[in-house]
Amino acid sequence: MPGLPTSAEAFVTLVTNSEYGLGAAVLGYRLRAVGTTRATVVMVTESVPETTRKMLSKTWDTVLDVTQLDSNDSDRLAMLKRPELGITFSKLNVWKLTQYKKVVFVDADTMPLSNIDDLFQYEELSACRDAGWPDCFNTGLFVLTPSLETYKALIRRACDDGSFDGGDQGLLNAHFSTWSHGDIRKHIPFSYNVNPNASYTYLPAYKHFADQVKMVHFLGAVKPWHYQYANGRVQGQNLTEHTLKFLEQWHKVA
Amino acid sequence: MPGLPTSAEAFVTLVTNSEYGLGAAVLGYRLRAVGTTRATVVMVTESVPETTRKMLSKTWDTVLDVTQLDSNDSDRLAMLKRPELGITFSKLNVWKLTQYKKVVFVDADTMPLSNIDDLFQYEELSACRDAGWPDCFNTGLFVLTPSLETYKALIRRACDDGSFDGGDQGLLNAHFSTWSHGDIRKHIPFSYNVNPNASYTYLPAYKHFADQVKMVHFLGAVKPWHYQYANGRVQGQNLTEHTLKFLEQWHKVA
Ligand SMILES: O=c1ccn([C@@H]2O[C@H](COP(=O)(O)OP(=O)(O)O)[C@@H](O)[C@H]2O)c(=O)[nH]1
Ligand SMILES: O=c1ccn([C@@H]2O[C@H](COP(=O)(O)OP(=O)(O)O)[C@@H](O)[C@H]2O)c(=O)[nH]1
Ligand SMILES: [Mn+2]
Ligand SMILES: [Mn+2]
Repeated sequence: MPGLPTSAEAFVTLVTNSEYGLGAAVLGYRLRAVGTTRATVVMVTESVPETTRKMLSKTWDTVLDVTQLDSNDSDRLAMLKRPELGITFSKLNVWKLTQYKKVVFVDADTMPLSNIDDLFQYEELSACRDAGWPDCFNTGLFVLTPSLETYKALIRRACDDGSFDGGDQGLLNAHFSTWSHGDIRKHIPFSYNVNPNASYTYLPAYKHFADQVKMVHFLGAVKPWHYQYANGRVQGQNLTEHTLKFLEQWHKVA
Repeated sequence: MPGLPTSAEAFVTLVTNSEYGLGAAVLGYRLRAVGTTRATVVMVTESVPETTRKMLSKTWDTVLDVTQLDSNDSDRLAMLKRPELGITFSKLNVWKLTQYKKVVFVDADTMPLSNIDDLFQYEELSACRDAGWPDCFNTGLFVLTPSLETYKALIRRACDDGSFDGGDQGLLNAHFSTWSHGDIRKHIPFSYNVNPNASYTYLPAYKHFADQVKMVHFLGAVKPWHYQYANGRVQGQNLTEHTLKFLEQWHKVA
């Protein structure tokens, strides 16, 4: 692949507690299993216990402390007015990792099925369409260029306008609002961030495109670590066959 | 608007029975209420009763008979092997309406909230992203150029490969497969074909973009005419406030 030396590029995720730490441990394992050639960085906040950090260091190249609230005083003050955006602010820390020229951010509740290093061909801000409101991108996976300027602009926007969904997805879609009908090269195929959903058009399409799926995203309130797992089997109701299969694949690693 | 004389352009829907006839009656009424300047055509199959045709003629400019199975013998023979695609084949008839230079096809279960004539600026094949598998387009609304050649190519594809979802959406997405990552000008904003869904990312986005919504699509097994309606109120469980509002708006017209 032409472009940057791969050492200047990294996969990055975020962990603020031990539950998401489990998710990140699986993700880190899978990234190595599919043979990534890029650096892997897990950002952890002060609230993450030492045992989790230790576990993460086994599957991630770098376990990096980030402040849940920025240390810059005026930022901190403004942020404190919107405590509900705490985790969003932590995610924005990825723009401060200027030691990397390009980053693929991935949620801790994702699981790559095959190598996804070709994502580094994309430019900021590239992402997949959201199943739900498909003119928004889903922020479980996005390609960005770290920059303190962008970081500050995002913080400013968050403090001024908040986020229309109370999380990072609303904020980032408001900021990168030309994504929807701008440059189609910034639309990563949905197969890189497949979020199983209940829409009745999803299932036949999933079956048709199944062999192209490169990453699964367990988005929503119920995460893989919430399911009971015993003897290679996940206990769960109203799950499609392939969701069950992915959950079991996840648990085999965890 | 520059381009074709508006008489060469039409909104077209399809009705194969009296239930969808109700849907089309509301749609036809709404198209006039929002002041369309284009012709409106409802295609009906032989199975549609006379009373329904009469009702439809009140809100549509043209009630047009189309054959459920094409009269061409070899087509008919091939089609008969795939009876499940019957309604899909009926929809494809829209490509035969070569008396129009451009057509906006709209499902009979849709309801425009405001004028959508600007859709005629789009070229074949333009459509909105599907909430569910967002790299597919939803075939509840699409812009096309009638052409016997395209019609035949679609019939051929249906006979050879069927449809991955058993309906027109699978067939048309397979045929116009470059849509997903081709020309972004063929991506109509989602606000023209909003299909309420249960994905948890949908609701906050809906609230944020609500004032941009131009058309609602009651996609899925439960249609507006399945709900009880009395004293200006729709009886329904697990409905969001705005879905209820749209259903009541629909029933006020029906
Ligand atoms: O309590 C939390 C919530 C979120 N996250 C991080 O933020 C991401 C986004 O949250 P989540 O995946 O729960 O959102 P969803 O994808 O379900 O919308 C997670 O994957 C984690 O990386 C975290 O570390 N702790
Ligand atoms: O029995 C049927 C089924 C469908 N249709 C027509 O085909 C369209 C597509 O079907 P539907 O809207 O039920 O599919 P959905 O949008 O729920 O996927 C309808 O809106 C109608 O115009 C019809 O006339 N009779
Ligand atoms: Mn997630
Ligand atoms: Mn429909």
